[in-house]
Amino acid sequence: MTTRRVKTAPENAHSGEASAPQDNRETQLLLIARQLFASKGFDRTSLRDIADEAKITKAALYYYFPNKDALYERVVLESLETLVRVVSAAVEQHQSPTDRVLAYMRASADFLDERRDQWLAGSNAFRQGPQNEQRLKAVKLRDTYEKLLRQCIMDGIVTGEFRPVDAGMAGRFLLSTLNHLSRWHKPGGRLTAHEVMEQFVNMALFGLVATPAANNRVPKA
Amino acid sequence: MTTRRVKTAPENAHSGEASAPQDNRETQLLLIARQLFASKGFDRTSLRDIADEAKITKAALYYYFPNKDALYERVVLESLETLVRVVSAAVEQHQSPTDRVLAYMRASADFLDERRDQWLAGSNAFRQGPQNEQRLKAVKLRDTYEKLLRQCIMDGIVTGEFRPVDAGMAGRFLLSTLNHLSRWHKPGGRLTAHEVMEQFVNMALFGLVATPAANNRVPKA
Repeated sequence: MTTRRVKTAPENAHSGEASAPQDNRETQLLLIARQLFASKGFDRTSLRDIADEAKITKAALYYYFPNKDALYERVVLESLETLVRVVSAAVEQHQSPTDRVLAYMRASADFLDERRDQWLAGSNAFRQGPQNEQRLKAVKLRDTYEKLLRQCIMDGIVTGEFRPVDAGMAGRFLLSTLNHLSRWHKPGGRLTAHEVMEQFVNMALFGLVATPAANNRVPKA
Repeated sequence: MTTRRVKTAPENAHSGEASAPQDNRETQLLLIARQLFASKGFDRTSLRDIADEAKITKAALYYYFPNKDALYERVVLESLETLVRVVSAAVEQHQSPTDRVLAYMRASADFLDERRDQWLAGSNAFRQGPQNEQRLKAVKLRDTYEKLLRQCIMDGIVTGEFRPVDAGMAGRFLLSTLNHLSRWHKPGGRLTAHEVMEQFVNMALFGLVATPAANNRVPKA
């Protein structure tokens, strides 16, 4: 990984003074960076890779993004921020812990269906590289995302809606299904990530073992 | 990745004619290869990396392993074969589908506790690289491992012990917890992989939602 700062990079590259064609170019570069971070991982993607893919020179790329940190900010952190915002909004629409857990898992699966590259760019990068300020921001966003699920579970244990499990472990248990889904699920397959998650979360909430209660309780669509 | 065959590699390197010190060296090289495949992945480990770690020349390494395919056989395939053998033996000791699923998940978690590098070397490598004969063998072993779990679930659905879920999805659901566990669990932590799995499999079998049946049914230790 190389992160280089170029002295000639203009300070106003993101100041709004850029013309429309430049904005399009910036959008294109962000899209390319996101795709490469998603497929190769942040650490294994170089500025050269992005410039090559966009068919521009590295110098031209530097005009928009003087180094990889600038791309981390715009791609990785923005992806994680969007995930936290979207999933939190979905959870807030529900009252009961079971419905809130369902909303969390469904909204996360929807994110994977609709913003797959953002999910992968975010989830690949938050573990990688040196622990600089930006990585700590990414870890903090990931913590916020995971804590929201734990809180829903703890609320359910307190109300007696959930069994008295270890809420941290139950959070990891549910997040396992999401994290693994992002690795094996392919877009355009037989089922969307949302449809797979419907089955997973049903199993997680009501268990595989048949009980009269479990057979009758199917989560609301 | 480079896999080179060296003309001077003796044909009898594994013929049993090797002296005791050579056997020790071979064992040491296999251990190093396994550790590197586990930490960096098979594709990102070169023969040079292994020779450097063992503090021998590449020529000396070639004496034991003329190319990376030979190491794939000894490290990756043997790891997967051991996993299949150990988990199958554990499952066969039980009759009921619930007990067989429990045995499967526990034996897999034990494998992670006791043979972490083998688990990682096997699970990292079966997806990587070109689909040559060895990769197909690895995929077949992985399929055998996963099919065993699916069969236990299908048996449970047939007997009515499990709810009528999609057995393939239920298999993926349970395997998600194992695969993710191998990524976040650190040896020497508060809980062993086995102890974490006890909680996960309890949640998977009996669900998070409190029902009188679920509260009373805790899997046998």
